[in-house]
Amino acid sequence: MIAEIIAVGSEMLTPSRQDTNSLFLTGRLNELGISVAFKTVVGDNRDHLTSVARTAMTRADICIFMGGLGPTEDDLTRESVAAALDIGLNRDHEIITSMYKRFAERRLQMPENNARQADVLQGAVVLTNSRGTAPGQWLETEFDGRPRIVMLLPGPPHELQALWEKACMPRLRAVAPAAAIATRVLKTAMLPESAADARTAPIYKKHSKVETTVLAAQGQVEFHLRATGTTHQEAQAAVDRLAGELEDELGDAVFSSAGESLEEIVGYYLQMRNAKLAVAESCTGGMIAERITSVAGSSRYFLGGAVVYSNDLKTLFADIPPLMIESHGAVSKEVALALAENIRDICNADIGVGVTGVAGPGGGTEEKPVGLVYVAVTNGQKQEVVQRRFPGDRERVRRWASQQALDLVRRMLM
Amino acid sequence: MIAEIIAVGSEMLTPSRQDTNSLFLTGRLNELGISVAFKTVVGDNRDHLTSVARTAMTRADICIFMGGLGPTEDDLTRESVAAALDIGLNRDHEIITSMYKRFAERRLQMPENNARQADVLQGAVVLTNSRGTAPGQWLETEFDGRPRIVMLLPGPPHELQALWEKACMPRLRAVAPAAAIATRVLKTAMLPESAADARTAPIYKKHSKVETTVLAAQGQVEFHLRATGTTHQEAQAAVDRLAGELEDELGDAVFSSAGESLEEIVGYYLQMRNAKLAVAESCTGGMIAERITSVAGSSRYFLGGAVVYSNDLKTLFADIPPLMIESHGAVSKEVALALAENIRDICNADIGVGVTGVAGPGGGTEEKPVGLVYVAVTNGQKQEVVQRRFPGDRERVRRWASQQALDLVRRMLM
Repeated sequence: MIAEIIAVGSEMLTPSRQDTNSLFLTGRLNELGISVAFKTVVGDNRDHLTSVARTAMTRADICIFMGGLGPTEDDLTRESVAAALDIGLNRDHEIITSMYKRFAERRLQMPENNARQADVLQGAVVLTNSRGTAPGQWLETEFDGRPRIVMLLPGPPHELQALWEKACMPRLRAVAPAAAIATRVLKTAMLPESAADARTAPIYKKHSKVETTVLAAQGQVEFHLRATGTTHQEAQAAVDRLAGELEDELGDAVFSSAGESLEEIVGYYLQMRNAKLAVAESCTGGMIAERITSVAGSSRYFLGGAVVYSNDLKTLFADIPPLMIESHGAVSKEVALALAENIRDICNADIGVGVTGVAGPGGGTEEKPVGLVYVAVTNGQKQEVVQRRFPGDRERVRRWASQQALDLVRRMLM
Repeated sequence: MIAEIIAVGSEMLTPSRQDTNSLFLTGRLNELGISVAFKTVVGDNRDHLTSVARTAMTRADICIFMGGLGPTEDDLTRESVAAALDIGLNRDHEIITSMYKRFAERRLQMPENNARQADVLQGAVVLTNSRGTAPGQWLETEFDGRPRIVMLLPGPPHELQALWEKACMPRLRAVAPAAAIATRVLKTAMLPESAADARTAPIYKKHSKVETTVLAAQGQVEFHLRATGTTHQEAQAAVDRLAGELEDELGDAVFSSAGESLEEIVGYYLQMRNAKLAVAESCTGGMIAERITSVAGSSRYFLGGAVVYSNDLKTLFADIPPLMIESHGAVSKEVALALAENIRDICNADIGVGVTGVAGPGGGTEEKPVGLVYVAVTNGQKQEVVQRRFPGDRERVRRWASQQALDLVRRMLM
């Protein structure tokens, strides 16, 4: 069974706005063993929408329309889908009554055009929208002699998601074939993408029943595994087997195999070891602290630290001797190590982190080019400092550097 | 002239990955007066891809395919587009030669399957890809008697963007009709979305020739204006007129009318006033510093500060008397003000910022619920502190709080 997801709305054809509902829907459909084969975005235009609807009916068993169910003249999904299927629309009096009631409760008169929201595809079931006025619709029908399921869903994510869980998921579960999709995500830190792929491709290619997608960001390569089976156990066993082989190959570069972020994993380790962390950041400018504190409950293991952007603050908050900066430069192994050691001491922490570098785009020299970053970690007995030359723009260099710092903390706690 | 953008790749039909290239392309197409009418995502499946290509040719003047140009068997864009257009593919010997050269330079042998990347649609112009091996293609042709422009572009964003700017934009400019689209973005800070819309809807609805999209995030409401005209001046004048009326209505809530971020605007003001900033952050955990230092050149006006997550660090780095925390609580107006005043003093800055709050999800009480945040700003003479109750989850509360802090700094400098 394959699905097509159609997002309706001209705003999603501008440079500034994107459909995101389809990611949620894809996840839920996959759980039922249903693949999404096509995604389409179309504007609030009757002809375009009707042609998109017709195309979808010809190629997908399940056609899900999102948006365009409101009361305005721009809301054309109902009419266009009816036209594509060559069926009529019936005005549902129960819906009208409940809309009148809603307005009356708020002592408002219902605008006449709201009645359009009560137009229901011939043969469709009305799906109550507990978080908005526009109801959804579910239609089991035929197109060119083939069975089709058509859903009309509201566009706002919180309305769509609530309605989906309550009304669509159970109905789909009843009609979906006994297939299931299992997924698994392995995340690695500080592994170059090319090396990660070269080492793993021979492994995941052998597992032809598991679909493997490799995603890479700054300092993070992720393996998204996905298998279909007749039962969930069968599908899960297939992804777990591959995940196990990949973990064997990649070793401790793998920091998570159940979706956790690197900052969550660092948090787990710190809690487990009952250790407190403090950071002194120059080029990352607070990004490491921000990432750590994005995790709920991080106050249990994170004390805080200093953003020592200027040289004066390196001395003031992290006790870096001005002479050290003068002789080695603010971007140096020595300063990174001293930042880590001193912030640990000063804050009375167990682990200290120090980062200094050239984030760019300006400020680079031949000796200390843009992208050069020193990251140091210490636990008082053992210290580690790495020198890296990260690629990319300012944002990427900072992101790489924060990833490197978190990964060094993880490795020190392992 | 309307365009359809087709993203090719099975990974974009999973719950974890989305096409983003189309946002870039839409922006550039709009500048030439070309609207995007359809966006489609399709997997690495020959039949699906061919049918998508055929559908696109029937409905769009410009069909842009992204991805599926690599050397593997999953890269099917060339074959499928050729099939949809019912034309052949010619193997281009210049491409082959340059690929051999590239591999030889790295002392590698070229794998045989790489030759597929040299297959060119009959009649197409080859577009050199300066950042990767797979070249792009540009074809002016006919489909069902109507003129069509077909582009095949590489999927990786940095390859696509470089190739687009160099090879596609000039070619399109030469064939696009003399219509132009002008855009303008107004950004406001700390205005509730409903109030922003209620105040502005009567204004922008009068300007029927300008399409207005209102986007809201934590503490930021943006008005994206867009008009089409026969000349760029005409279109620009239309958006500028509306932008002027909106600015009159919204006053100093508007912080930017040319796309700048709030952190960039704060940077401009600080530089203009030759003022230095320091921050002491509790619940935002470094987010304010991170946002400020995301701007290149921020070392000219940002000294740094402290992430005073634990109470001890509030005392250690920002000199907050333990007694003050004991009597008022760490989340209090008094502590926020003292953080701002003291960090300013200690760092020898002109402006000091202090933030303390309950980001959640835990840690809330009846008296101090999740979302309660105090933000203080001082310049030594004038101080300002606000108490807010921000909605949403941890990430949103923190984002709201950092936005509030930056906006207070902006207002203090205005």
